[in-house]
Amino acid sequence: MRDFLPADVRKREYVIGIIKEVYESYGFEPLETPAVENLETLMGKYGEEGNQLIFKILKRGEKLDQSLDSLGGLGSKEPSGSEGTLTSKTFETSKTSQTDLSDLALRYDLTVPLARVVAHHRNDLPKFFKRYQIQPVWRADRPARGRFREFYQCDVDAIGSTSVVVEAEVIAAATEILARLGFRDVAVLLNHRDVLFGILEASSVPPEKHTDALTALDKLDKIGPAGVAEELIARGVFKFDEASAFVELVRSKVQFQAFPVRDVPTNEKELRQENYENNLFHLGEFEKVLEQSEAGQHGIQELRKLFELIGSESSARVSFHPSLARGLSYYTGTIIEFGLDNNDFSGSIGGGGRYDGLIGMFGKEQIPACGFSLGLERILVVMEERGMFPTEIADSTPADLMVTIWSEETIAESLKLAADLRSAGLRVTVYPEPDKFGKQMKYADQINVPYVAVLGETEIVEGKVTLKNMKTGEQETIDRDQLVQAVSHKL
Amino acid sequence: MRDFLPADVRKREYVIGIIKEVYESYGFEPLETPAVENLETLMGKYGEEGNQLIFKILKRGEKLDQSLDSLGGLGSKEPSGSEGTLTSKTFETSKTSQTDLSDLALRYDLTVPLARVVAHHRNDLPKFFKRYQIQPVWRADRPARGRFREFYQCDVDAIGSTSVVVEAEVIAAATEILARLGFRDVAVLLNHRDVLFGILEASSVPPEKHTDALTALDKLDKIGPAGVAEELIARGVFKFDEASAFVELVRSKVQFQAFPVRDVPTNEKELRQENYENNLFHLGEFEKVLEQSEAGQHGIQELRKLFELIGSESSARVSFHPSLARGLSYYTGTIIEFGLDNNDFSGSIGGGGRYDGLIGMFGKEQIPACGFSLGLERILVVMEERGMFPTEIADSTPADLMVTIWSEETIAESLKLAADLRSAGLRVTVYPEPDKFGKQMKYADQINVPYVAVLGETEIVEGKVTLKNMKTGEQETIDRDQLVQAVSHKL
Repeated sequence: MRDFLPADVRKREYVIGIIKEVYESYGFEPLETPAVENLETLMGKYGEEGNQLIFKILKRGEKLDQSLDSLGGLGSKEPSGSEGTLTSKTFETSKTSQTDLSDLALRYDLTVPLARVVAHHRNDLPKFFKRYQIQPVWRADRPARGRFREFYQCDVDAIGSTSVVVEAEVIAAATEILARLGFRDVAVLLNHRDVLFGILEASSVPPEKHTDALTALDKLDKIGPAGVAEELIARGVFKFDEASAFVELVRSKVQFQAFPVRDVPTNEKELRQENYENNLFHLGEFEKVLEQSEAGQHGIQELRKLFELIGSESSARVSFHPSLARGLSYYTGTIIEFGLDNNDFSGSIGGGGRYDGLIGMFGKEQIPACGFSLGLERILVVMEERGMFPTEIADSTPADLMVTIWSEETIAESLKLAADLRSAGLRVTVYPEPDKFGKQMKYADQINVPYVAVLGETEIVEGKVTLKNMKTGEQETIDRDQLVQAVSHKL
Repeated sequence: MRDFLPADVRKREYVIGIIKEVYESYGFEPLETPAVENLETLMGKYGEEGNQLIFKILKRGEKLDQSLDSLGGLGSKEPSGSEGTLTSKTFETSKTSQTDLSDLALRYDLTVPLARVVAHHRNDLPKFFKRYQIQPVWRADRPARGRFREFYQCDVDAIGSTSVVVEAEVIAAATEILARLGFRDVAVLLNHRDVLFGILEASSVPPEKHTDALTALDKLDKIGPAGVAEELIARGVFKFDEASAFVELVRSKVQFQAFPVRDVPTNEKELRQENYENNLFHLGEFEKVLEQSEAGQHGIQELRKLFELIGSESSARVSFHPSLARGLSYYTGTIIEFGLDNNDFSGSIGGGGRYDGLIGMFGKEQIPACGFSLGLERILVVMEERGMFPTEIADSTPADLMVTIWSEETIAESLKLAADLRSAGLRVTVYPEPDKFGKQMKYADQINVPYVAVLGETEIVEGKVTLKNMKTGEQETIDRDQLVQAVSHKL
């Protein structure tokens, strides 16, 4: 886990600020949930591996004593002397004790807390609840490069409607955020759970092999067509020639030219239009392939509506990607993934989709939902690598100006000057004690303030102040009441 | 622990926004630390009670197995059949096991993480480090009214200088925040650790009774002079008549008229000046009383400097309060408390002081520091009770305008209109699906949007839109390109 020093915080807040502003312009509202949830709310929602990765909080006081007592009790029932069973006994103790010794846990994602909130606060929320949430989550992973055990998620979800309008708006908002952050190579991949089912039906994969087939297929971008075919055979889904045909079918995706939006402005519009038509054409081709599958037909229809709503104006390159499954998660409809064409380390920078089945797990009512999560930490890493932060964020300073202190006797004058400058809207720091002039300037240099207001004995007597530009070294002595104007003008 | 629904989040963000803005205008920089710290970083820093209130995170995997094994091992050494010792055994198991079963813990305050950061990142930080930090902390308290187990702290600290300039700036910043939030009855109490020592010296309290005496004295505002005298006697600090004299000495504080800043503008300046002079006079009186105490003299001198720097211009009523000890915490110099005169439930809304000894606990170097913590949760409760939120925050809406959807065929038109309005800076939500007109208006009412743009078949054909004012019910059909102007004008 990391400390964020001021320069880090400023960059994070810049990105988060834009995310919030765009989501709010789409009518999404902020929600915050506590870091700590009941353990039972989280257990069983993220699969067996997820259960292990949840940070669990130790019970306290009497409850802890009771749990330890009952664990001890279990232990004493073991026949003594049977040393051979020690390992398996330990293992079982540990499995039970994790939930016996703990009653609370750290938030693992923002989706399960949302489902809990929607189920519990149903009457306090509007019929369609559009919320965004930007908060940290915790996972007890072994930390790897660029992965941390505490990291922020930026989620946006629209609850209550099955309409594809929701998907269109979620995609438009995320696209706008990335455009405003300065990304010019955003690629959006779209698929539909029913298209995946349709493909399996059309290829006569028996239902009991669906999970195996999708698990293999989801790796297409990582291990390539040959790798997927191999895995399909190993998992007993297909024989050799069937496997290749299956992979070919899915792999055939829209082939188009990538268009760097800013670099080729002349034919940008044309390329977008071509891309749009390619997608519709490709959906049509797939519709024929999935003719016999009702689910497949439905998936294609939904995607076609979505592509039509997105249209040809999006600043991102949107494409139909029939192998996209996003790890067999809880998606029930549209599946969305955002990536970067020129990404230096591969992987998505956001993803989401429709999940109409999750909220029902927390309440009586089944409520449809569609959500999207932006990968804040990835976005920050790429922006750093590409030097995408605006100068005022990248070269951030704690203040616009520092006021010096001449002596014990002139402290009050320096504080008054600082107060005046602040009421005029400047960010002003005061050197905290009377000190040698050289030391004060050295500190101003260290904290990188652009201006220093020197308030010496002469200046005070004459009602003046010496303004020093720290970059050029220039300085000028001016009337005190002209200082605000002089600095504001230069900043 | 609480969920914050959108209306709550907006209020919290409004207050936090002002706090950040003011702290930044004083040159304080943002710092963020992880929610999870090593358990050993926190243990022993908050006293015995604090140790118990720290949320501890269960060890994971092999480490947990090993800890459980060694706990089991300890248990098996007990002679069997000795059931009488069960309780004490359990007790001891629980005491050891808390630290045996846990390696990480949730942040308990923002000061210890700051001290850790300063000690560990010394070379990445400027010589004087001025930081603010606004993040949640967690305490395993039994929840009481207005207290929660997850709550935000808003801390500001200046590291590296012993100068009283730091105290003056911290107090000025907090005063400005509260003034900008609209508080008109802020009372600032100031004392100094050395004044408390001086009082004990002057009253011939032996060093081994200092803690007892201060513990009793700190309760003056809660249990009154008679209560304190009683407790001093019970604790064996004083005999009866000594106790009364002691309490009288400390209790004699500046008596002045409270001045409600906005209500009596005519003599506000006079009252402030009178208050200022009263404080200086009162410090002079105390200086005489503490003549024999070197510590006492030093404390008075520091406070006099501080009062002079604050001057008579502060919008808060600042006063010398010689019984203020703030729970015998780690303060080594100035002690600061902020309260409200008309506070409906008593208690401070912020406090702090100088603590020159804490950071040294984490590194080789002893580094002076002065900090202040604003009670965000209290401030929010009082602002709610007093109705202090500006209308645009109190009556917040998810959007400035909602766009209706007429039919499946016109969805794209509605999305386009929404996009146009957003590029013009409006917050716009779209009803997510084709639906009966009445239902769409009912939803607009539910989410409290001030305007609805109705885009029906006729409007689309004619390039127009019907703008409905939800408060007055008025509606007018206007050209589409006039909509932005019409709405912006009215908002």
